[in-house]
Amino acid sequence: MGKLRVGVIGYGYWGPNLVRNFYAHEGSTVTVVCDLSEKNLKNVQEIYPAIDTTKNADELFSGDVDAVAIATPVGTHFELARRALEAGKHVLIEKPMTQTAEQGEELIALAKRNDRTLMVDHTFVYTGAIRKMRELIDSGELGELFYFDSTRINLGLLQEDVNVIWDLAPHDLSILTYLIDEKPTAVQAVGYNHIGSSHEELGSINIRYQSGFHAHLRVSWLSPVKMRTALLGGSKKMVVYNDVEPSEKIRVYDKGVAVDLSGQEVTAFTPIYRASDVLIPELDRTEALTVETGHFIDCIENGTRPLTGGEEGLQVVRMLEATGESLKHDNIFLTL
Amino acid sequence: MGKLRVGVIGYGYWGPNLVRNFYAHEGSTVTVVCDLSEKNLKNVQEIYPAIDTTKNADELFSGDVDAVAIATPVGTHFELARRALEAGKHVLIEKPMTQTAEQGEELIALAKRNDRTLMVDHTFVYTGAIRKMRELIDSGELGELFYFDSTRINLGLLQEDVNVIWDLAPHDLSILTYLIDEKPTAVQAVGYNHIGSSHEELGSINIRYQSGFHAHLRVSWLSPVKMRTALLGGSKKMVVYNDVEPSEKIRVYDKGVAVDLSGQEVTAFTPIYRASDVLIPELDRTEALTVETGHFIDCIENGTRPLTGGEEGLQVVRMLEATGESLKHDNIFLTL
Amino acid sequence: MGKLRVGVIGYGYWGPNLVRNFYAHEGSTVTVVCDLSEKNLKNVQEIYPAIDTTKNADELFSGDVDAVAIATPVGTHFELARRALEAGKHVLIEKPMTQTAEQGEELIALAKRNDRTLMVDHTFVYTGAIRKMRELIDSGELGELFYFDSTRINLGLLQEDVNVIWDLAPHDLSILTYLIDEKPTAVQAVGYNHIGSSHEELGSINIRYQSGFHAHLRVSWLSPVKMRTALLGGSKKMVVYNDVEPSEKIRVYDKGVAVDLSGQEVTAFTPIYRASDVLIPELDRTEALTVETGHFIDCIENGTRPLTGGEEGLQVVRMLEATGESLKHDNIFLTL
Amino acid sequence: MGKLRVGVIGYGYWGPNLVRNFYAHEGSTVTVVCDLSEKNLKNVQEIYPAIDTTKNADELFSGDVDAVAIATPVGTHFELARRALEAGKHVLIEKPMTQTAEQGEELIALAKRNDRTLMVDHTFVYTGAIRKMRELIDSGELGELFYFDSTRINLGLLQEDVNVIWDLAPHDLSILTYLIDEKPTAVQAVGYNHIGSSHEELGSINIRYQSGFHAHLRVSWLSPVKMRTALLGGSKKMVVYNDVEPSEKIRVYDKGVAVDLSGQEVTAFTPIYRASDVLIPELDRTEALTVETGHFIDCIENGTRPLTGGEEGLQVVRMLEATGESLKHDNIFLTL
Repeated sequence: MGKLRVGVIGYGYWGPNLVRNFYAHEGSTVTVVCDLSEKNLKNVQEIYPAIDTTKNADELFSGDVDAVAIATPVGTHFELARRALEAGKHVLIEKPMTQTAEQGEELIALAKRNDRTLMVDHTFVYTGAIRKMRELIDSGELGELFYFDSTRINLGLLQEDVNVIWDLAPHDLSILTYLIDEKPTAVQAVGYNHIGSSHEELGSINIRYQSGFHAHLRVSWLSPVKMRTALLGGSKKMVVYNDVEPSEKIRVYDKGVAVDLSGQEVTAFTPIYRASDVLIPELDRTEALTVETGHFIDCIENGTRPLTGGEEGLQVVRMLEATGESLKHDNIFLTL
Repeated sequence: MGKLRVGVIGYGYWGPNLVRNFYAHEGSTVTVVCDLSEKNLKNVQEIYPAIDTTKNADELFSGDVDAVAIATPVGTHFELARRALEAGKHVLIEKPMTQTAEQGEELIALAKRNDRTLMVDHTFVYTGAIRKMRELIDSGELGELFYFDSTRINLGLLQEDVNVIWDLAPHDLSILTYLIDEKPTAVQAVGYNHIGSSHEELGSINIRYQSGFHAHLRVSWLSPVKMRTALLGGSKKMVVYNDVEPSEKIRVYDKGVAVDLSGQEVTAFTPIYRASDVLIPELDRTEALTVETGHFIDCIENGTRPLTGGEEGLQVVRMLEATGESLKHDNIFLTL
Repeated sequence: MGKLRVGVIGYGYWGPNLVRNFYAHEGSTVTVVCDLSEKNLKNVQEIYPAIDTTKNADELFSGDVDAVAIATPVGTHFELARRALEAGKHVLIEKPMTQTAEQGEELIALAKRNDRTLMVDHTFVYTGAIRKMRELIDSGELGELFYFDSTRINLGLLQEDVNVIWDLAPHDLSILTYLIDEKPTAVQAVGYNHIGSSHEELGSINIRYQSGFHAHLRVSWLSPVKMRTALLGGSKKMVVYNDVEPSEKIRVYDKGVAVDLSGQEVTAFTPIYRASDVLIPELDRTEALTVETGHFIDCIENGTRPLTGGEEGLQVVRMLEATGESLKHDNIFLTL
Repeated sequence: MGKLRVGVIGYGYWGPNLVRNFYAHEGSTVTVVCDLSEKNLKNVQEIYPAIDTTKNADELFSGDVDAVAIATPVGTHFELARRALEAGKHVLIEKPMTQTAEQGEELIALAKRNDRTLMVDHTFVYTGAIRKMRELIDSGELGELFYFDSTRINLGLLQEDVNVIWDLAPHDLSILTYLIDEKPTAVQAVGYNHIGSSHEELGSINIRYQSGFHAHLRVSWLSPVKMRTALLGGSKKMVVYNDVEPSEKIRVYDKGVAVDLSGQEVTAFTPIYRASDVLIPELDRTEALTVETGHFIDCIENGTRPLTGGEEGLQVVRMLEATGESLKHDNIFLTL
């Protein structure tokens, strides 16, 4: 069997990374790139003279490509993916998969009907750090899981088409979906708009699970410092994940919350020192997208289910959709 | 005029700091300490042979003290403070001032009627870091204020009488009350209980203000790492406060959120570098409680209003009370 | 006038950066790349089909290039640069410029005789951080300069042709040469060899200047952590440079050593807190090599003296040569 | 047997810590404190009414004390210790033990002759961090030891009686003496004087050992930042010690220098990432001086040899003396 022929739609911010990885992988090649911008297509031609370019996505659906990778604004995901699947192509979509859960369900059904691979580009799932966290969970080292608490803030570009939750939270929601086998049962969100843009610029999200596990996410476009941290608390051990660290992204604390803490006197005025070793494990540093594109090719070849398939993409969209609903409910605040 | 004679009730965790400071201050002395524990009273006698000790608080109210400092569990604050004020004593109460707003209002009225100084021990307000933040606000350097976002988490003692919000949030709420001249208008809280204790062990709080300003607080007893950070975002500059840093607690970023950010391309995959100078200002390192006890003495001598008087204590209690109400409202979550 | 036609010799570790920058600069282009490795030349052809490749450096000297950039092992620098200058080409040489000071002097004389630009690739000099340090010196803000104390250590590749001083110290020596207007008067070096390689793997260097200014450098290939720090101490202010920091590379301490320190009680057991503001200035983040190649082109066009010309390259070589001499003098140690 | 009766000479900076620890220890008490300053003696009386005070050290030698702790300027150590030993007292001396090796030898001989315990207050040896490092060495985990590389710098008090090497290096030299079983064979030192004080304000020291092991120390009173770091490199693992960290003082890198490094391409421009786990071990946080005073009492009771006895004190003095000799040899610098 020959190389997988991939067509990429969208050559803006993320598309070039998809092209570079599918082009370099020995199991695939990129035959055509589609974008509406003349300038972007020219960039493709300069770096990859062998790749065709087009402004018309139809050329991909009707052409000789086996798979289509979609890296366009979220509003166009559903339509492009639907047409690709109907044309019998395998599909990799940028996250979030679609704008609504209904659209996501339709894509899943369509992929199933046409026996095509549908995968969502939940890139973080393929990083060494997140895979290590999953390993720690699977080994039982962390014990029973209690919470995931994430902060993803920076001074960011105010997006015109989505709010900060749709912009930043998909990363954490895709991580959650990968790490936590349970499905979430309820979502609550609060958002704020300070500069007068049309979308929320800061937000916080609470997510509940049947078992009692919960997640808390804080996202912001208005922070002077960039923070990318998450705590994963278990009954035996806890993990601190700091994605801003160049190499020491994961710290494992040999300290759970099930232990009897009653002997410790702790206040804001007495420093707390950890009473355990800390381990900073070695992480695989392969580029996440390289791992991911390889996984996409494997899934197509072997007909196996992707780690981040349509179902996982749908779960993220469901949670995003729920935050939108929650933002409309003002009654969750108690008037003082 | 002679030294202010102070009686201290409660010699557990915080009381010794009150005694040490009132004892050392040239404008005051400690004449008597009250505690129910024989052992604690013995500790007083060993270190301060000149101080009387008693198990009976009545001795303070009927005795020759001018002021009473109360460092007992919150459930006893109201009763002890009421009796002290009725006996004509000035009062300094540990935070939170009372268990209910109603109690707080009663103490304020009583202090006013008896013309006594009522002050709440909002210690953080007297630190160099928080005073510097107030200075930055007053100077106009930060511009219009947008948000306060705080994280106060560690592996903490599970309290038997209060939840994590009543334990940790009073620090941040007292800071907010000091920094923000506006009154909050609405509060919303979420809490979680994972280990089976009777109180919430993690919580997040959202607070709204009339002007659009908002606060978000995250508190936890179940974090393997100790974090004490707060961001204060303004239209001109932003401040990052990190209380865990030994000396560089405050960083001022010459970057506000009113500037046009549209030129910046920022995503989770491209590191954001600040495009401005950062200033780490020198802070006064006088012990906060030393500043505070001095302020209490001054207010009594000059009949002036304390920075952290009954009204400020009441505002903190109001917000705490509202979180309790909010925790009962489960309908703020949307079922998935 | 047309674009400067540059030929690059050496396409190993650093050569690709030179090619990329000269290729992208609007004032220059790369017409030919020379390397002994078939594989390296193939890499050139794949990325830059328009660039000629050759294994024979003579083709550059006799060909239509205006300037030659040399990025080969140091042992070949002199011969290649000599031939290029004799052929009337402008020359940019990787650091260290030559193996001996004598060779450096000959190249300087040759460049002068043939009226060609001779520049050494002291890349750090063109970084935003080092240029900011020079600015701080020029403005008088630092006062009289006292010392430069640098640490450059990591777990490094053991080189076969040079010791750790020739490998790592050229960076710091080129920075020193740029920052300090004075010439050094004396050098002393110590080196150690622990793993049985043929060259020193750790070393420390002391350098004296007429005015009393001194430099101390520590270099190592055997450190488990990577450190890239330098302190620049002045009578008025001091600068801490940390090149490992992604953005906050420079910190300016408003504290010099001329102040009366006698009031401070400082020991290993009492923490020292700075009693001044710290400023983290914004730095230009343009890639250093982009600034540098632009400067090379300018110097050629305008006949001006490069910031890092032959004289500066020679000074670095002189200091390196002196460390080699010093390493042979075992009598500097006192037997216990 | 009763409590050891300790007399303390010197109640300036360090004496109060000695008094506090000997006073609190159940195996000892402090009966008398000697100091020349009326004010210091008054401080003793206020805190410890039961302790006698005197300005005359003779009262201790002739009195009812079993042991004398000496915390006076180094110039007085020898004479006071000699008289104490001659009077049959056990002796604990502040570091450095004496001003000359000859004096140290005399004290050792005297203590032996009179069968008294002579111990030197090398406090760091009793910290959890340094004891953990010794444990790591003893377990063989680090493999063969190669080097110790320390930086001890801050903005310090310029001493009138000693230079920066005598002020700061004794800490590192006492650590070295404890960690490394071998004796040093040769010492070399360089010092600088920038502010016109009569003593060196910055210095660097190289120390050689028979086996090839070496130490490099950098000390400075003129650094705007406080650094207290040391690297201990072994053939199997390496340790980074950072005493400024509140709790994570020790990091163990599972990476030695005997491994084949040839596969790694490492330069100043490519970040080096560690390819191994890092362990941050839990440390005993008992105050070092508490451990040490207990050890002193044990050694006296059981007639055992102290970890930091006269021989260890002497070795530190020998190295300090050698640095002084080396500083006089200007010929170690090569003129440029």
